Amino acid sequence: MNSTSYVRTLGHRAKVAAAVLGTTPTATKNDALLHLAGLLRENTAAVLAANRQDLEAAKGQGLSDAIIDRLTLTPERLNGLAAGVEEIVALPDPVGEINGLSLRPNGLQVGRMRIPLGVLAFIFESRPNVTIDAAALCLKSGNAVILRGGKEALASNLAFAGLIAEALESAGLPTNAVQVVNTPDRTVVQELLALDEYIDLLIPRGGEGLIRHVAENSRIPVIKHYQGVCHVYVDESADVEMALSIALNSKVQRPGVCNAAETLLVHRSVAADFLPPFIDACAAHAVELRGCPETVRFDSARIQPATDADWGTEYLDLILSVKVVAAYDEALDHIRLYGSDHTEAIITENYSTAQDFIRSVPSSLVLVNASTRFNDGGQLGLGAEIGISTTRLHAYGPMGLRELTIEKYIAYGEGQIRE
Amino acid sequence: MNSTSYVRTLGHRAKVAAAVLGTTPTATKNDALLHLAGLLRENTAAVLAANRQDLEAAKGQGLSDAIIDRLTLTPERLNGLAAGVEEIVALPDPVGEINGLSLRPNGLQVGRMRIPLGVLAFIFESRPNVTIDAAALCLKSGNAVILRGGKEALASNLAFAGLIAEALESAGLPTNAVQVVNTPDRTVVQELLALDEYIDLLIPRGGEGLIRHVAENSRIPVIKHYQGVCHVYVDESADVEMALSIALNSKVQRPGVCNAAETLLVHRSVAADFLPPFIDACAAHAVELRGCPETVRFDSARIQPATDADWGTEYLDLILSVKVVAAYDEALDHIRLYGSDHTEAIITENYSTAQDFIRSVPSSLVLVNASTRFNDGGQLGLGAEIGISTTRLHAYGPMGLRELTIEKYIAYGEGQIRE
Repeated sequence: MNSTSYVRTLGHRAKVAAAVLGTTPTATKNDALLHLAGLLRENTAAVLAANRQDLEAAKGQGLSDAIIDRLTLTPERLNGLAAGVEEIVALPDPVGEINGLSLRPNGLQVGRMRIPLGVLAFIFESRPNVTIDAAALCLKSGNAVILRGGKEALASNLAFAGLIAEALESAGLPTNAVQVVNTPDRTVVQELLALDEYIDLLIPRGGEGLIRHVAENSRIPVIKHYQGVCHVYVDESADVEMALSIALNSKVQRPGVCNAAETLLVHRSVAADFLPPFIDACAAHAVELRGCPETVRFDSARIQPATDADWGTEYLDLILSVKVVAAYDEALDHIRLYGSDHTEAIITENYSTAQDFIRSVPSSLVLVNASTRFNDGGQLGLGAEIGISTTRLHAYGPMGLRELTIEKYIAYGEGQIRE
Repeated sequence: MNSTSYVRTLGHRAKVAAAVLGTTPTATKNDALLHLAGLLRENTAAVLAANRQDLEAAKGQGLSDAIIDRLTLTPERLNGLAAGVEEIVALPDPVGEINGLSLRPNGLQVGRMRIPLGVLAFIFESRPNVTIDAAALCLKSGNAVILRGGKEALASNLAFAGLIAEALESAGLPTNAVQVVNTPDRTVVQELLALDEYIDLLIPRGGEGLIRHVAENSRIPVIKHYQGVCHVYVDESADVEMALSIALNSKVQRPGVCNAAETLLVHRSVAADFLPPFIDACAAHAVELRGCPETVRFDSARIQPATDADWGTEYLDLILSVKVVAAYDEALDHIRLYGSDHTEAIITENYSTAQDFIRSVPSSLVLVNASTRFNDGGQLGLGAEIGISTTRLHAYGPMGLRELTIEKYIAYGEGQIRE
């Protein structure tokens, strides 16, 4: 079968499965998920054997240690995946939820009911565990999904696909509800991007290159998860101890992820109190600082001058750009100019400034006196997430089960007609 | 200025205005809208003079009477537009609304706050009143908007643009919050479709050709309002009198709009009771019927045989396709195959069938025992609407003020960091 007819077959099958899944009771979906969790624990040896094929091929290709670590499955990681699936079972099913049911003046009872989006295509890079996370979230939210993982993880992904199919079948659900692309052929991605007849939404997850490629080459709606150039602003009224703790945590707790801070803005009137101990703390955590001229003057031996490019850079590393600002408004202007709408935090004890920051900053998460690292579905109370959207359409911030659904209108009448 | 730099200038100005509008208090936005309503009533003569220019040009080009009627403004229509603006003033402002604020286990207070989408571009066809409706909805919801109306209405649209600018200025708001494209040059549309740097959402409104053109030629998200191939299904347990009233109303009350019925499905066991009086009623309302063979047998003199193409056709006219089905499931299958996800109604007295239809049909509005003509923002309780989305993403069904916003996450902390 050539890739065009292969991908069209995937799409058609997904659409047929989606019609079934859309009205499948929660209990049946949960049965399939619990069965999947069990299979992940029972079939550790088989999955790890498949994973070893991927790892050996990866070593032969000279991939980096970081990529090989992301690719590696272990019994602990498989158990963690199974536990994650069980957490999704425990989350409420958004499908069928009815909101706002009320009577119109003519007696028509009108409300909104949550339904799945339909057919999703999820295109992601090397971590094979995304196959399980995404399959579980899509199944619970009643969507059919086509999963296309990285070619480095193909054997692992296909091992997972077998377990997912077995779990679906055991619950009497169509196995085409979750389909894993079975070839590393890159033309499959191009074919998926063109399949607007069957696919309702594309979700790319991975590096910025992948996301831009998908967004720029498809007319199917895309939920984008671009970079996070996240800011922490230490206001003139900040509690300095709290500011030190939050700024450091935002940078170092896990520097390689999108909700880590990349730029620190410091009000001039607290710079002399805040910056010297912060510079020491950064040195102790091996964080490289790149500062504006005023920042550099605090410790020119340990702080590099920042270039214009630094202010817009997502380092994803132990590097932080630092700027002293003369006023709160200058911090806001800097965030507007260089921010990526991901996560912004203010440290302040001033009530009005806190409220103004919450209202004025249009990022997907805006925090007062807390670490940027909280922009995460689990931390914000959504349970599992499929990614963090930085597009102000449909979903903004962490996307959980609810964001994989939409509301239709429903109306219960007694013969009403329009006059 | 060439069209590229003209359109880029529109985009840049809109983005700057959007940052101001996003935090403008409701009272200020309402001031501008009330001022606009007043100006529409005070400047009737000037607007009608501009409209006469459009009408004279249209007559010279031999446009149809229907198009000329849509293009025509009258003192009554202007007064209706002003009243529409006042209705938008009376609607609650969705911006700033906070939902779901609750404490996480670590004491972090997390919720969601509604914010505008940003910069919208609205591309529409000949009716100039859309300029006022769209401007008012976008302003109230805090979005900046670029309006590109039909070239036939350019003089009328520019007259409205002058009033809108005056109203914005009187309230101290940036006049670039609402910009009307001032040239009939078609390359402007192409430039707008490419302006993803500034435009967050495209909303095309008009014929299917326009909507497809926009959706197929832009990477900016598009909310689509495609055709409505709406179905009325008369179930075996239907109250026949009610079914006659609803089926007729769905077709004839305003046949030229997207929520009018195009296909009637009739359960075989009520066909003999329902179809003869329905055929008479259609004859009395000059409705042409095109039927399946079983339908035609009821009155072969007055019913044309339907072709396959009929089942997928949006007539927008006094024409109705009619099919007899052997069972409820056959009706569902027909809707799945030929429906357009717009509006579907069932007429039934059977509780379980009604509930199943509400759950199983994934259209933007699903009704029991009421006319399809209720799929309208005003009728469903949203107040004004900017269109009816048939895309299961962001908005589905009528799009009102709330659908022109999105929720960001907000978090109030006391020093929380991630462990």
